Amino acid sequence: MSYIPPRLRGVFAPVVTPFYENLQPNPTAFIEHCRWLIDSGVGLAIFGTNSEANSLSVQERLALTESLLEAGLDPARMLPGTGCSSVTDTVALTRHAVNAGASGVLMLPPFFYKGVSEEGLFRFYSEVIERVGDQRLAVYLYHIPAMSGVSITLPLIERLLKRYPTVIAGAKDSSGDWANTKVMIDNFAADGFAVFPASESFLLEALRIGGAGCISATANINPAGIRALYDAWKTVRAEELHSRATAIRQIFQPLPMIAAMKATLAHWRRAPSWQHVRPPLTVFPPADTERLFEQLGAVGLDMPGARS
Amino acid sequence: MSYIPPRLRGVFAPVVTPFYENLQPNPTAFIEHCRWLIDSGVGLAIFGTNSEANSLSVQERLALTESLLEAGLDPARMLPGTGCSSVTDTVALTRHAVNAGASGVLMLPPFFYKGVSEEGLFRFYSEVIERVGDQRLAVYLYHIPAMSGVSITLPLIERLLKRYPTVIAGAKDSSGDWANTKVMIDNFAADGFAVFPASESFLLEALRIGGAGCISATANINPAGIRALYDAWKTVRAEELHSRATAIRQIFQPLPMIAAMKATLAHWRRAPSWQHVRPPLTVFPPADTERLFEQLGAVGLDMPGARS
Repeated sequence: MSYIPPRLRGVFAPVVTPFYENLQPNPTAFIEHCRWLIDSGVGLAIFGTNSEANSLSVQERLALTESLLEAGLDPARMLPGTGCSSVTDTVALTRHAVNAGASGVLMLPPFFYKGVSEEGLFRFYSEVIERVGDQRLAVYLYHIPAMSGVSITLPLIERLLKRYPTVIAGAKDSSGDWANTKVMIDNFAADGFAVFPASESFLLEALRIGGAGCISATANINPAGIRALYDAWKTVRAEELHSRATAIRQIFQPLPMIAAMKATLAHWRRAPSWQHVRPPLTVFPPADTERLFEQLGAVGLDMPGARS
Repeated sequence: MSYIPPRLRGVFAPVVTPFYENLQPNPTAFIEHCRWLIDSGVGLAIFGTNSEANSLSVQERLALTESLLEAGLDPARMLPGTGCSSVTDTVALTRHAVNAGASGVLMLPPFFYKGVSEEGLFRFYSEVIERVGDQRLAVYLYHIPAMSGVSITLPLIERLLKRYPTVIAGAKDSSGDWANTKVMIDNFAADGFAVFPASESFLLEALRIGGAGCISATANINPAGIRALYDAWKTVRAEELHSRATAIRQIFQPLPMIAAMKATLAHWRRAPSWQHVRPPLTVFPPADTERLFEQLGAVGLDMPGARS
């Protein structure tokens, strides 16, 4: 009997990565933010798109992961992004995550070449899975065509699930297209495939048809609110919690999200260095912060105790 | 007076990277191919798109470069690709190239995030140039929007040239759009900015208006023919050499180019392992090789002495 890693459920934050002014990663602020997220009830999808993961070297990612482990954060709450353009890098990061005890990895397809074949993508994932060769490995496929330019199609999922039924554990759908998320859930959730839309706006709808939760940028800002919605989705409070979470999401949606979230954390924590992003991203325009903080104030969102 | 690194001219091959069957890089075959290219009169644009550079780790790129240096190949003939999504990786590769004595580096923009601002791209290049901080550095900007999804626009070139006039040395235009190449040359060549279209089909036209040469995939297969065209562009033989080089280019243009070139090298060198590509690319279909080799035979193209 082969071992089947448990499938993840719940709310995950693609954790934003703090930098010092010189753009080196700031492990102290990273640990503090991750601890707050866990205490607020959400898991750590470290090294996702919102983490500027592809703006980090492999070595920087490994070092930041080690800093979380050394600080005693529970690796079972971690879902690191490990997909790179190169098989070599992807294997190195994935192997490290599995050995660290992460519950799964979120894996981008190789994203430099465009118009690649389903066969080529199958072989990429296959090569990584075979090389890591560890029954604890649980792979969540990361569909974010607007950034990667390479789609995780339904036939690809089907083929990977058939070949690696214990390893292929689910997907994050960042297409922003609910119809696509729905068909992923309809086609594969019954087999235990855990589908996470990339926004809390879809969380309630997803849970109602068999989705597993969500992995959402704004879980960096509103973790407790999104977690409350996840917990209460079958109750009479669900619609109200959905509306509130969605209203907060809507504040960030039109903005450069990563920079806006970092500006918010800099403000809440009175830690100006939180605002830094690595190029090609740019810091949130200081002139726009007042309006943003007013909007957050208007919905009553703050980080309890951070500025006490 | 500040030092100005000399601008490159001529024909460069974005060198295909050989792998063993286990997909590890094969330095012996790499050295052999690079030596043949130099002997055939073309420079080494190692680690470009056709090199599967982004399918390699930083460490693998450094090790392959070292193997060329140890084999005694002239670093002045090298134009390594060093642009990665992360500033950290880009700086590491660029610094290594400069210290190795490479004549320049071909630098992709960071290619994960799409829709980034000109300001963000300016800051990325700026950060790399400042961190490397070496007056020997000559940066060639790499415009390949179909793969990177991020454009090197004319205003970006202008701004970088103004800020770093000695460092910003030129560009490779892989847009495939002659109008874009022409305007790059028209706007910037007079200032010494070296523009290389990505196909020998544009070489003659580019040289006639002040372009610097070309950096073309098929220089891996037809280096001497493209070099002959470069040398004879002002002579009566130019049109004939252009037609011949273009006819050879046309054989590969409709095919998956990297895999087709590797299949050709495997055939010419009787070295089957040359066919390997890393996923997400796939090997050239064996069923299609006969037709390809017939077409190459029909234009009389072979690697002299390789199979003797």
